[in-house]
Parts: sequence; structure tokens; C-alpha cells
Amino acid sequence: MKVLTEEYEQHNFYEEDKFLQKILKKYMTSDMFSYADKNLREFGQRAAGPIDERAVHTDREGQPRLERYDKYGEEVSRVWVNEGYKQTVKETYETGIVGYVHKNIPELGEKGTYTYSFAQGYLLSQAEPGFYCPVTLTMATAYLLDHYGGEELKETYLPHVLATGDMELYEGATFLTERQGGSDVGANVVEAVSIGEDYYLYGEKYFASNAGMCGVAMVLARMEDSKEGSRGLSLFLVPWEGGNIRIRRLKDKLGVRAVPSAEVEFTGAKAYLVGEADRGFYYMMEALNLSRICNAVASLGIMRRSYTEALLYADGRNAFGRRLAGFPMIQQTLQELRMKLEKETAAVFEMVQLYEKVTNGTASFEEEALNRLLIAIMKKETAEKSIEFAHEAIEMHGGNGYIEDFVTPRLLRDAQVLTVWEGTANILALELLRLINKYEAHTLFIKMLREKSTDGMEKRIDGMEERLLRFAGLEETEKELEAKSLMKDMAILFEDVIYEQL
Amino acid sequence: MKVLTEEYEQHNFYEEDKFLQKILKKYMTSDMFSYADKNLREFGQRAAGPIDERAVHTDREGQPRLERYDKYGEEVSRVWVNEGYKQTVKETYETGIVGYVHKNIPELGEKGTYTYSFAQGYLLSQAEPGFYCPVTLTMATAYLLDHYGGEELKETYLPHVLATGDMELYEGATFLTERQGGSDVGANVVEAVSIGEDYYLYGEKYFASNAGMCGVAMVLARMEDSKEGSRGLSLFLVPWEGGNIRIRRLKDKLGVRAVPSAEVEFTGAKAYLVGEADRGFYYMMEALNLSRICNAVASLGIMRRSYTEALLYADGRNAFGRRLAGFPMIQQTLQELRMKLEKETAAVFEMVQLYEKVTNGTASFEEEALNRLLIAIMKKETAEKSIEFAHEAIEMHGGNGYIEDFVTPRLLRDAQVLTVWEGTANILALELLRLINKYEAHTLFIKMLREKSTDGMEKRIDGMEERLLRFAGLEETEKELEAKSLMKDMAILFEDVIYEQL
Amino acid sequence: MKVLTEEYEQHNFYEEDKFLQKILKKYMTSDMFSYADKNLREFGQRAAGPIDERAVHTDREGQPRLERYDKYGEEVSRVWVNEGYKQTVKETYETGIVGYVHKNIPELGEKGTYTYSFAQGYLLSQAEPGFYCPVTLTMATAYLLDHYGGEELKETYLPHVLATGDMELYEGATFLTERQGGSDVGANVVEAVSIGEDYYLYGEKYFASNAGMCGVAMVLARMEDSKEGSRGLSLFLVPWEGGNIRIRRLKDKLGVRAVPSAEVEFTGAKAYLVGEADRGFYYMMEALNLSRICNAVASLGIMRRSYTEALLYADGRNAFGRRLAGFPMIQQTLQELRMKLEKETAAVFEMVQLYEKVTNGTASFEEEALNRLLIAIMKKETAEKSIEFAHEAIEMHGGNGYIEDFVTPRLLRDAQVLTVWEGTANILALELLRLINKYEAHTLFIKMLREKSTDGMEKRIDGMEERLLRFAGLEETEKELEAKSLMKDMAILFEDVIYEQL
Amino acid sequence: MKVLTEEYEQHNFYEEDKFLQKILKKYMTSDMFSYADKNLREFGQRAAGPIDERAVHTDREGQPRLERYDKYGEEVSRVWVNEGYKQTVKETYETGIVGYVHKNIPELGEKGTYTYSFAQGYLLSQAEPGFYCPVTLTMATAYLLDHYGGEELKETYLPHVLATGDMELYEGATFLTERQGGSDVGANVVEAVSIGEDYYLYGEKYFASNAGMCGVAMVLARMEDSKEGSRGLSLFLVPWEGGNIRIRRLKDKLGVRAVPSAEVEFTGAKAYLVGEADRGFYYMMEALNLSRICNAVASLGIMRRSYTEALLYADGRNAFGRRLAGFPMIQQTLQELRMKLEKETAAVFEMVQLYEKVTNGTASFEEEALNRLLIAIMKKETAEKSIEFAHEAIEMHGGNGYIEDFVTPRLLRDAQVLTVWEGTANILALELLRLINKYEAHTLFIKMLREKSTDGMEKRIDGMEERLLRFAGLEETEKELEAKSLMKDMAILFEDVIYEQL
Repeated sequence: MKVLTEEYEQHNFYEEDKFLQKILKKYMTSDMFSYADKNLREFGQRAAGPIDERAVHTDREGQPRLERYDKYGEEVSRVWVNEGYKQTVKETYETGIVGYVHKNIPELGEKGTYTYSFAQGYLLSQAEPGFYCPVTLTMATAYLLDHYGGEELKETYLPHVLATGDMELYEGATFLTERQGGSDVGANVVEAVSIGEDYYLYGEKYFASNAGMCGVAMVLARMEDSKEGSRGLSLFLVPWEGGNIRIRRLKDKLGVRAVPSAEVEFTGAKAYLVGEADRGFYYMMEALNLSRICNAVASLGIMRRSYTEALLYADGRNAFGRRLAGFPMIQQTLQELRMKLEKETAAVFEMVQLYEKVTNGTASFEEEALNRLLIAIMKKETAEKSIEFAHEAIEMHGGNGYIEDFVTPRLLRDAQVLTVWEGTANILALELLRLINKYEAHTLFIKMLREKSTDGMEKRIDGMEERLLRFAGLEETEKELEAKSLMKDMAILFEDVIYEQL
Repeated sequence: MKVLTEEYEQHNFYEEDKFLQKILKKYMTSDMFSYADKNLREFGQRAAGPIDERAVHTDREGQPRLERYDKYGEEVSRVWVNEGYKQTVKETYETGIVGYVHKNIPELGEKGTYTYSFAQGYLLSQAEPGFYCPVTLTMATAYLLDHYGGEELKETYLPHVLATGDMELYEGATFLTERQGGSDVGANVVEAVSIGEDYYLYGEKYFASNAGMCGVAMVLARMEDSKEGSRGLSLFLVPWEGGNIRIRRLKDKLGVRAVPSAEVEFTGAKAYLVGEADRGFYYMMEALNLSRICNAVASLGIMRRSYTEALLYADGRNAFGRRLAGFPMIQQTLQELRMKLEKETAAVFEMVQLYEKVTNGTASFEEEALNRLLIAIMKKETAEKSIEFAHEAIEMHGGNGYIEDFVTPRLLRDAQVLTVWEGTANILALELLRLINKYEAHTLFIKMLREKSTDGMEKRIDGMEERLLRFAGLEETEKELEAKSLMKDMAILFEDVIYEQL
Repeated sequence: MKVLTEEYEQHNFYEEDKFLQKILKKYMTSDMFSYADKNLREFGQRAAGPIDERAVHTDREGQPRLERYDKYGEEVSRVWVNEGYKQTVKETYETGIVGYVHKNIPELGEKGTYTYSFAQGYLLSQAEPGFYCPVTLTMATAYLLDHYGGEELKETYLPHVLATGDMELYEGATFLTERQGGSDVGANVVEAVSIGEDYYLYGEKYFASNAGMCGVAMVLARMEDSKEGSRGLSLFLVPWEGGNIRIRRLKDKLGVRAVPSAEVEFTGAKAYLVGEADRGFYYMMEALNLSRICNAVASLGIMRRSYTEALLYADGRNAFGRRLAGFPMIQQTLQELRMKLEKETAAVFEMVQLYEKVTNGTASFEEEALNRLLIAIMKKETAEKSIEFAHEAIEMHGGNGYIEDFVTPRLLRDAQVLTVWEGTANILALELLRLINKYEAHTLFIKMLREKSTDGMEKRIDGMEERLLRFAGLEETEKELEAKSLMKDMAILFEDVIYEQL
Repeated sequence: MKVLTEEYEQHNFYEEDKFLQKILKKYMTSDMFSYADKNLREFGQRAAGPIDERAVHTDREGQPRLERYDKYGEEVSRVWVNEGYKQTVKETYETGIVGYVHKNIPELGEKGTYTYSFAQGYLLSQAEPGFYCPVTLTMATAYLLDHYGGEELKETYLPHVLATGDMELYEGATFLTERQGGSDVGANVVEAVSIGEDYYLYGEKYFASNAGMCGVAMVLARMEDSKEGSRGLSLFLVPWEGGNIRIRRLKDKLGVRAVPSAEVEFTGAKAYLVGEADRGFYYMMEALNLSRICNAVASLGIMRRSYTEALLYADGRNAFGRRLAGFPMIQQTLQELRMKLEKETAAVFEMVQLYEKVTNGTASFEEEALNRLLIAIMKKETAEKSIEFAHEAIEMHGGNGYIEDFVTPRLLRDAQVLTVWEGTANILALELLRLINKYEAHTLFIKMLREKSTDGMEKRIDGMEERLLRFAGLEETEKELEAKSLMKDMAILFEDVIYEQL
């Protein structure tokens, strides 16, 4: 029996990714780049090697498992993870993927950047977005705590959330969604009861990712005397070890099976107010913006993995007497994938530069609005593309692509979540409307394009300007109906502008 | 805790599907329709009820399992299926989904039609395409045996393949693909060794669906003295009980987990030649055409299920103070889904009418070519749409849509195979080229459109004619690069023409 | 490769069991025997065939599974069982294994007997005691309802509990054990709160077998004003559909995996008082006596299966140039097993005759005490022997015996429960003490032996009498220390006496 | 709800085992003891902690899994083990459990002893005999290689087999059993074909423990021109990486699920002759003696764990108003278990002292025969007792003891193998007969007892002498029938003699 194919496998997600290296070089100081280049080379190997191997096991038979009761029948709500999983957690956080965004990198004597963190996230997601998800939740937790936490709270918890091997790590989590509400966070009913200075939470969260694994969770709840809707929600930090938290079940998800997503019941869990009362929704929306960037980064990771898997298979496999990669249709597909991947990568990392300013506090009010706009359109576009890429990778493999021995089915299953969590297309479209109606974000978008663009793009920008102005004048219902296709075109134009000027 | 939603569930896949009823009425004699209407009503209930319930179990924990060795260590290569699975097999075949295409329906005193069979397939696929797959393989087996089998072979096996409860059922299977070849069937190496009048097969098949469950398999193999390539392949009937067949493993597929797809080794399996030697590839391509229609029908099933699940969820679920179905964006999505579903359903059943002629032997040579063309473009379009529909159903459910407790993830996983098996988009594009180059099928296509169309469509048809003529004159490589987008537009135009004249 | 062994398999558990037939003939009227013989022949085939096959699946991958929440997150506490399981339930109850103990056998125009029911249980247990367990719980439920239920309760529920295909079957269950109490039932704390005439249960049961499958459960609970200890417990019938019952989890048992054993929480379940208030413990102890006989019958089933498996393997397998069965050591083992099996079978069915009198209400007070004594010693002895038999069957198979492809590991795992539930050896020893101290049951035992025995046994009976009298005079602590070895000797003597006079 | 019990758990298997410490002190030099005491304290903690935790996972969901084919369909026959498993392997071998029997302990500058190795095995088996099994196979491999391997072979492989972290570890394995033969090793048919100086194996082994995990396997095979029966078997070393080895399947064992036991096919595996041709059976019987001691040690481990689990549960659990441990029956059981455990531990370690002499080459011919006798009777007795202990531990826990959340079911499942592998009771009885008939081993036994015994034992020894002499004069068939009960009594007397003189 002739061998089907030589094994064309990747051994380092970073090393051969010249485009990523180019992007990082562009956006990093030279010190930072030289640090990052060295460390990403190492992490890229680990991600393509043991982390990927553990991802396979975790996805198939080794996924997190709820131990709701102990052997004596006591409710314990522990989440079991396999030992390789623990190793991946350790290896990932010790790179500073969360910590060095907020604290100094010892070798450099200065803080890292989101850019560096997202580069790591992009590599990690090529192995498994389900491992990246807890990281992003920990990033959001760190953000909220660092920006809004009181001094005592920060002192107690932040070092653990930022741990890089120097102390016990507390992973984070953000619990928003409730059963009756879904994306409609304002409908939430979890209650924060105060006894003296202390708060105790009661109620249920429905998609509580990283439950049972996190050391602290950031939770939206309503104080007893607060008003209805999103303006009556406060943000609380809940230490997991404080108890009175039950996990009803872990969600049986299509993909990203590595992260335990739970239905959680608070039965009087000790909680600490973060920031001002009733401002929780506002804080959480900020964290959500960060999570949406993370989502885009994970999408890039899946796109990259899908592309390289397709490429390697096409190189290694024969049909009708020649290499797959020799067929024009195949070449066309691969070429289109590569082009789209590079454009989106460039666009996302450009957007991240603006985000660095926003989180630094050096951005103008307009830049903040523009930032949100870019995040909304890029989150949507990258997520949709990641599904398409995964699908193309499957088709490139033919029947093999549909078999779970190959990574392709997992890529598709994982990709699918990226359009769903952190806001579906509909939710993002409503965000676009809000930004246009309230901040005229469309004019900021055009202005930015004009500044960034090279000569040849003018006409397309003019056309977009016209379209946006017309759009801004529509009835709300008409806007809703057009918003999604508009966002797609905005994303493509943004990508082309950025890619041209590289 | 407020209830998330009342349970909006379907109880009969046929009863509320007025569009299907309209289509069937149009294409069936009144006797046939009245028979079909009654029986589909019953089958639609069963499919939405117990068959769907068993599909869930079969997909998750109860999937077919290979018992390669018995307890004494002897190689047995048995496939275990759960008891509900057996019940579904029984209930499905006894409707005559295969049998009545080739033999009389007792109540009517005449044969059934493919139209009726596909209506059943469409309902069944709403529960689980993985259950429909073995049926379609049995259909292909019946077709091959009925059209090309010698008298003795037909006498022995055909009644079992067509069994409707009157005798032991032999499910069928078609084994084409080999490890080294994939879609390149001509590269096959399974050998048929003759000893006297008998043939014995040696070699390996790589995607052998229904292995271990089938009573007879139709297998392509090369006789010792036959030439290389597809013109040296002969078709054989292999009775499973004849032995000397090993199942190496069952494929761990992303979806359609109900059908056991295996890697099979023939180690001297007794085989009977079907039709003429060296004509096997030709026969199998005919069977493949049938399978592609089945594929389109399964796609329609997934689209229908996705649509109704999305609709019911949108009706039952509240967000931001109103029913989901009250939001313009949601209404738009649902409306677009419904429209596309109806158009594709109409187009596929129109295509089936031509197929009835072809298999009746009453079609002209041109009609045969046109039929192949339609099959290629509709197979491609419906498969791609079924994935899109499944994706939309997930998004409509938000986070819930990603959870395996809902049917949506299974719809996506199942849909994904439909673009892959029976020919990927690339393979179908090559088929288009062949039909245009060899039979000028593009002119037949335009001619048919003109005949079928109502007045308003002329311009679009003219445009397509122009494009096709230009396309037919391109270099092969250029053709390859354009073929897939062309096929999509052809499919859409065909659908619109058919839908308009309903 | 030479075949390891021809397949020596059983096809009917009844047909070749001449000893059982002899026993049944002895204890049944001729009409009853001729009915039973015909039906057991059929059931013996089913038990050795499909029921055994389903038992394998149910034990390994198909065991009952808790669905605690539905897809919408609502607590439902449903127990899923596989479809073959449902078929076994149907096929078993329709033989009248429960029903005909309490209602007429249509063909005979008279009620069946426990003897007949136990014969069925003995056959069923050869396939799987885990399937017999729910039956025995339903027997206990029927017993309690028939003897102590009020008229209305009986009218509503008894026909369902006794259903033989004529109406919907309600399986039964008996919930005694609590987490803090275990065998110490008097420590129970489940509360029955009365509101008007109705009762509602609150609290937790810890080994609730058949939870989720039963239609009605018989539950011990304490009324609000009842005293502590076993004398404050009342018996309630709880209809499962009445709701407010949660299943926390199913026990992950070593064996008898077919029966779902649960931790159950009552959160206000509607309940109906059975019999008089505060007499529940007394009623339940009666039911427990029945369950202990069932336990002995299941033990016989395992012994029989172990013996026949060992015998067939020894017949079929060669080692060192001859059949295993040709070795003296093997012959000796098989002979000892057969002898013990026959003695215990005879003794248990003899004991059952007395039990028939007791439940008929025709037994004297002394006979009732004697009956309890026999049940205690025979429950203990048969359970211990069933483990030994299973162990011997494993050893007879050598390494194969340890492999789950063979039935032997399951026999051992199942057997192990029989010493544990319905009272461990220690609990049974305390029962012996109680019967001796309170009813002088030891003298009744000796009297009975003298009546039943043939001539040659006198000396042994004299010896036992002496020993019992001495024992009865010991301090309680000394009694406790000797009780278990005494019971063993009593059991052996009883068996020998009964066996001699056959 | 009141808590069922405080958690009474062990944290170090060595520290509280004063009896073991006493035994080791007696049999070790003071340097060795002080080294051992320190290291066992550490290992005892690890075994009771992480190793035990991993054992639970490995037994339930994480057991070794065969990957027979890679994703491309190539036969690879890899065995997957979980990452914790690998950690346990590392932690165990680095203690020198195998290595230091054959090479110097760096801290001491001298070799370790079997006594020390067995002490480790006894602790490890308390966590999981399934982890100890591969160790014992590696011990046997080291023994065979060290004693009989040629210089080149030893140089190449022995350092790896003895690795303690200094180089890559090659675990060992011994493949004897074949499908048709079972214990009748002389019936083996695996063939060694020589091509020039090299050997290549063909054929099948049926219980090949540690297949896929081992670096080298010691395999019995028959050279082409060798005679039938056990005298025609040669011993070969097969490096696993040499290829041409297929694993058909892993055995689905009742217990010791940690060790992968396989059906293996050699299809031309490269092999190296160990020692002289045709002497393989003789060598392997020596290795088997070592394995039988390991088996006895594992039995002690299970007994110890069973005893401590029972003790702790009885201490922690209340019933009928007092601690379980307060009941006379419970005290009696615990006391009997402790006594038997200590006696067997003492007897086994006494026997090991003689074994040290035998493997040192300092034993007389008579001592060798006596050693074999002791091994046979002690293997049998300890294995049987380990089952009994596990059973008692279950009963002590009542219903809980039957639930897999507790360690008790695993103890029983694991114990069960100990009577089966390395020779069933029947096989051991035949060994006794051989030793008596050929070496008058019974007189050596009596002589040894007289030397070791304290005054009070004379009468019992006289009785045994008389019985043995009578026994030695019986017909073979009569001997066979009495052998097993005789062995039991010999074991008990031996234990009592050793225990008395402690």
C-alpha cells in the first residue's frame, strides 16, 4: 500500500510566520521586539508541540468534568481538569500573557504590551482557542481590577491574577449572562444582599466560563435598592474559595471544550464591590471590548492554523497524478486564504495600537469611540472568516477533513463559537448603530481611513463616506436591516487600507 | 427563576410544511399524492418524534461501534448498533423509501417514484442525515443491481435490497474510495482475482460507509488483466456474509455519526461481477448522480430543520423586553431563510422530475447531459446553503445554539459533510467543465431556462447566456478558476426561474 | 492459528436445569407446574438470549444516566435508559413476575405463587441481577400496598404496579436509607409535613434504587410530631409524577449497573400515608424480609450462571494436551460447585414454601419467627457463596476470566452487592440475636430440622441443638462475636437436611 | 443535613505503618535501613497522595488506550497513557525500585536489595497494583538480562532498563501466554526465524502486559528446528522500536486497568537471543518466581490498604448512636484483619530473605527448592487473602463500599487478578507436587520450620510433618485433590512460626 502522504506537520507556529514577525517588528520598540521574538519562538514551538497534543486529548476524552458531590454526598462543585491541562495553564501564564500587560517584564524593566500578549494569544489559539479563553477572562479580570478595584482589593487579589510563577495564580472569570436574559444583560436578576459592609450574592449565572477553575470571578449583580435595567447593576469580585457557589452543570459545547462553561448558582457567596455602585454594566462593557479583541485574535489563530493545514496537505497529497497544490483551483483557494489572513492580521494589530492608547488613558474621546467601532466590525468579520477558513481547510482535505483524527473538525467546532460569544452579529450591529447615532463614529472612521490610506484608495473611501452618510440618515429599522452588510464592507475597506500602507 | 422560554417544539415534520405539500401535489399523480400525503403525515410524526430522539442518543453516546475481535480473539469485524437504531432502520425501510422505487406499492398497484422517496428522505434528514445516508446507499445499490445486474444476481439479492418488511432486509453500500486515491477513483488498486468463474477481492477501501451493516456492497475493483485508470475498473457485488472482509476501524467523524464509515480490508472476499467487465466506473458514476441528488435532498432537510428551529426559538424567546421574532433584523433573517429554502426545494424537486425520466429510460441524450449539469450545480449549492442555515440557526439561539443539548450543533456537524462527500466543490466544478466541453451542456441549460421561465426573467437569462458562451471559450485553467462562482450563479438563476413559475 | 475453543454457550437457562425443574415439580400443583414449565422454558430462552445481550450493553456503555436539567436549564431529574432496557422491562413484567403473585393468571383462573415468581427471578438473575432488582422492589411495593394500603390508594395504584401489559406499568421502589443513617434506619430525618389531609415530604434519601424509573415509591418518613427512632417512622406512597423530587446523582456502582441507584431529595413531594401512622418501620421490615428472599434468589442465579460458565469452559478448553474438564482438580471443583448449588437451591425453595404460608396469613406465630430466622441465615449464606462461585468461575477461565468480554467479571461485580444490600452479615447477625432472644427462634429451628430430617442427620442436629442452647445463654457481646460463624453452620445443616429428604 | 463522617484519610502509607518499619529494620543493615526509612517516608507520602489520585483517574476514564492506526491509516500500534501516568512512571523508577536491585545506590555506594524494592512495591500497590505491575515486569526483564544476557546485549539495554533518571528508561515486559495455550506455555507456537545471525519473530501473544509501553520485551519463541513442548522454547529480547509488532487490542480487564495488557502480533520483529537456545522456558520460570513474589507483595499492599480503609471508616462513622468501631463485631473483624496482615507481611519478607540468597548465588540447592515451595504457597495464600480483605473493606463501608467513589471497589477488582496471573491455585498446586516429588521439598519445609520456630509450635509442626509424609505417599490424583487445602495449612503454619519469633 502506497503511503497516502508524507507527514507535513508544523513544529513551530511562530518561526515560519514571517508576516506576523513583520507586523510585530512594525508595532514594537526594538527592545520589546527582540524580547518578544525570542520568547515567541519558544512559545510557538510549545504551542505547536505539547500544547497542541494536550488540546487533542482535552477536546476528545479529557475535557473538564464537574464533580458536584464528594464521595460522602457533600456538595463540592469541583471542576476536574487533566494533568496536561494544568501544565498548559502553567506554561501559558508564566510567559506573562496576562501578567506583563500590567507589571514589568523583569528582563526589560518595563511593562509589556497588549500587542505582545495578543501575539501569544494568536499562537495559543492555533493550538486551541479553548485554552486561550480562560486567559482572556483573566485579562478582563485584571483590567477591571486594575482600573476600578479599590486599593485593598487590588493589593489582595491583583498580584495573584497577574502571577507569572512567582505566586499562586488566580485565574479570572467574568459572569454576565443569565438564563432569562442572554445578551440582554440589563434583565439580570442576581442579587447582592448587603450585611453591614459585606455583600452576599444570590442567584444564577448561565454561561459562566472558567467556573471552578478561576480564583476570582467578576460578577454583575443588582443591589437590593438599585433600579431595573443595566443602570442598576454593580460589579463584584467573588473569591471562588469563599464558597456558597454551586455549579449545576458544565455546558456540553460543540467546541472550545477545554474551557469549563458552567451554570452557576450563588447561594450567598461573599462578594466585594468593585468601583462605584450601579456602574457595573459600564465597567463590564469596557471589559467586553477587550474580550472582543481577544475574540478577533483567536479568530486569526484559527484562520492561520486552517491555512497552514490546508497548505501542507495540498503540498503532501497527490490526486490524478499530481500534487494537489499543482491544481489551479487549489492554488487560487490557498492564495485567497493567505491574502485574507494577512489583511486581517494587519488590521487587527493596527486596531490594537489604538487600543493600547485607550487603555493607557492617552486616547481622545473620539479615539475611544473609533476604537469601539473598529472592535465591533473586526470582531464580526474575523469571526465569520474563521468559520470560512475552517470550512476551506476541511474541503481541502476531502473526506479526511471531516475525520476527528485531523485537526480540521476541531477548528470548525471551535471557530463556530467566535461568532456567538462576546456578541453575535446582531448585537454588534446594534453597537454600530449606537456608535453612529451617539458619537458620529462613521465620520471618525472615514477620517481615520483618509489619514491611513495610500493614494489609490481615495475613490473607495469616497464611496464609503457617501454610503455611511446616507446610512446615518435612515430610519432605525432600515438601519438595522442594512447594518450587517455595511459592517462587512467597512471591515474590508479598513483591512485594505491598512494592508496597502504596510 | 422565570422560565427561559416555553417549549416550542415540532411534532410532525410533514404536517406544517405546506410548501412541501404544494410541491408534491404539483409533481405527483393524484392517486400517488393521496397515498403519499397519508403516509408522509405518519412518517413526519415518527421522524419528529422517536426517530429524532434516537438520533440524539446515536450521535452522542450510542454511535455504531466496531467489535473487531470476539472474546476468544477471533477477528469478527462486527458493527454494533443500538436497539433504537435497529428500530429506525425497520421503520424507515418499511415505508418503501427504497423498495417502492423499484416495486409496486400494494395499495396502488404501481411503482412509487423517486419524488416520493425523496420526500421521505427530506423528512428523515430533518431528524438525522446520518440515518438517511444508509438509505441512499441502499438506493444506489438497488439502482445498480436493477439496471446492470445479471438475472441470477437480481433474483438472489434484489428482493432483499428492496425489502419492505416482507423478507430479510439487505442494506446496500457502495465502496469506491481508497486511501491513496480519494476522489481520484481511477487510481484504485483493489484487485479482483478470478478462480474459475468466481471472483475474490483483495485490498483496502478507505471510506466504506455502512460497512458491517450492509447485506451487500457494490465495490469497484480491478481485474488482474485490466488496464490502469478508471477504464479498468469493474463493479462487483460482495455479500457481506461471504466473509474475508475486515474492518480496520470506524471513522471518528465530525457528524453523521449514525452511519458507520469504515476502513475495510478485503482478504479474498467472494464477489460477483455486475454488468460488463471494465465498465464499473461508468456504472458507479451513474450511481453517484443518484447519490448527489440524495445529498441535495439531505441538504434541504437540514435547511428546513434549521429554519424551523430558528423560527420557533425566535417565537419563544424574549430579549430586551420583546420577542426575538419582533426585531427587524431577526425577521429579515427568517424571511431570507424561508425564501431560499423554498426556492431550493422547488428547484431540487423540479430537477428530480427530469431524473425520473432519465431513470425511466425516456430521456433524450441531451436531457441526460442537462440532468447531470443540474445535479452538479444543485448538489453544490444546497450543500453550501445547508451549512449556512445551520450557522444561522446557531446564531439565532445565541449561546444556547452552541450547546449540544440543542439540535443546532448537530445540524452544523451533519451539514458539513454534505459539501465533502459525493464530490467537493472542486470535483463538481471539474464535472461542469466536462459537461460543457463534451456536451455543450451550457446551451442545454439556457434552452431549458427559456422554456421554463416566465416573462420577467429574460434579461437575466440573456446575461447568463452571454457569460456561459464567454466561459466556454476560455482556456481550461481560466475555466477552472471561474467555475465555482459561475455554478453558484447558475444555481440561483435556475432556482429563481423555477420558483417564479410555481 | 488454532481456535482457542469451540463456543460453548447456553441458549436456555431453564431447559437444561433439571434440578430446578425437579424442585418446582415438588413444590407446585400440577396445573401450576405445567403452566410454569411452559412459560419458564420460553423465559429461560429469552433470558439467555436477548436479555443477556442487553445486559452486557447496559452494564458497559448503556447504563442508566441522569438528565438532571433539560436543555433550558430547568431541573427535571429524568433517568434515561436505553431502548433494549425498556424492552427487557416489558418482557419481564408481562410474564407476571410481580403481577401474578397478587392477581389471577388468566390461563389458570387462579393466582400465581411466590415460588413461580422466584423461579423467574432465578432465571433473570442469571442474565443480570441488576435487572431483577427493580422487579424485587416492585414486588415489595406490591406487597406493602396490597397488605397495608387503604382502599382508595389500592384502587388507584395497585393495578398499575401489578400490570402485565394490560395497562401502564408503575414500577415500584422502597426508599429507606439516609446519608447519616445507613442501616440505622431509626436515625432517619426525612420529614412528612401535613397540610390539611395531605402530606408533603422533605429531605434526602441516599440509596434510592429505581429512582426515576419507578411510578411509585414507598418511602419512610417522620411526621412532624412523631417520636425519634424507628417507632416514629411512617410509610408513604409517593407518586413519581407528583414532582418535587430531585435526583442529585446516580451512584457509580461496582456492579448491578442496570438499576439506577440514586441520591434523592424531596422538596415537598406529595405523599400518601400507607397503613397506620408510626408503623412504617414495622411494615418496611416485612418488605425487607421479602427483599432478602429475592436477594437469596439472585444469589442462586449468579451461582448457577457461574457454575454453568465454568463447566462449559472446562468442557471446551484444552491445556497440556487434554480438556480442562479431564483434570481431577477441575472435576473436583465443578463437583463441589454443583453440589453446593443444588443444596442451596433446595433450601431456598423450601424456605419459600414457609414464606408462602406467612404471606397467605396461614402461618402460626412460631412459623413467622422461624421464617425470619431462615431468611436471615439463608440470605447471608447464599450471598457469600455467590461471590465464591463467581470467583471460581473466573479462576476456571484463567486470564480470560478476568476480561470483561467474558461474563465472569460482571458476575463477580454483581455478586458483591448481594452481601451488602438488604443487610450485611453484621446486620443479619443482629437479627439472629433478636430472634433468639425474643422468640427463642433457635428452638423452633431445631424442631423444624427434626421434622424435616431423614434418619442419618440426628447426630448433627443434636450437636447443633447443644451449641444453640449454649449460645442462647451467652452474654450479648459474646453472642455477637460468635453469631456469624454460627449462622454459617446453621445454614449448612439446614441445607443438608433439606437436600437429604428430596 | 448532618455530615456523614469526618474525612478519615491517609496521607502517608509508610509513616504510620510501624509494623513494616519493624520488619525492615530487622532485615536491613542499619545503613540500608536509614536510607530506606528516609526514602520510603517520602515515597509513602507520594503514593498516598498524587499517585493515588492519578490511579483513580487512570482506572476510571484515563486508562491506556490503543491507537492502532495513525490519522493517515498507517498501522502504528501506539499506546496512549495520560500525562499523570507518565509522571507516576517517572517518580517510581527514579526511586530505584528496579535500578537499585542491580546497581549501586549513589548515597550508599552499594547495591540495594530486593527487600527495599519490595517495600516500595508494597507502598505503591496500596495506591494501585496496576502501576506496580509494569515495575515488576521491568524487574523480571532486568533479572533475565542481568543473569542470562550476552555482554553486548547487556551493554546496550541493561542501563536503560535500570535507569533511575540518568538516561532514557526502557520499561520491560515478559510475553509468555498464547491464545491456544494459556498457562500451558509449552504449547506455544510463536516462531523465531533466523536470517544469518539475526532472529525475526512471527506469531501472536495473548496476554502481553505493558505492550506499547515497554522499551524491551522478553519473549518466548520456538526456533524453526526446535522440538515441541517447553524444552524447545528460547528466550528473546525484542526492542519495541524495532517495529513489526502489532497490537490487536488492549484487554478490557476487570481491574489493574492502569497496565495495558494486549494481544500482540509479531510480523517479523527483530529479536536477540538471550542465553542458550532452547533454555528459554527454564529462564522464564526463574523470572516467574520473581513475579510471584511481586504478586505476593502486591497482595500485601491491597490487604494493608483494605485494612486501613476499613479501620478509618469504622472510626469515623456512626450507627445506632455510636461509632462503628465501638461494636464488638467490628472490633473483632478489624483485629482479625490486622493480625492476618502482620503475619503475612512477616512471612513474605522472611521468604524474601531466602530469595536474596538465591539471586545472590549463595543459596544451596536445597534452599532453592525450599524457596520455590515458599513462593508457591505464599503467592496462593496472599492472593486469596487480598480478595477477602477487599471484601471485608467493602462490607465495613456498607452500601458506600460498593460505590466507585470509594477506593473499595477498585481494591476488589484489582485483588481479583492476583489469584489469576502468575499462576492460579491449580497451577501452583501442580508446582507443589513437582517440588515434593522431585526435591522432597516437604522435608525441607519441615526442617526450616523447626529451625525457625519457638518452643510452643512443636506440636503443630509434628502434625504437619505427619500430614506431609502421608501426602507424599499418595497417588498423583489423590495428591492433586488435596494439594490446595494442604498449601493453605502450610502457609498458615509458616506464617505463625515466623510471626512468633519476631
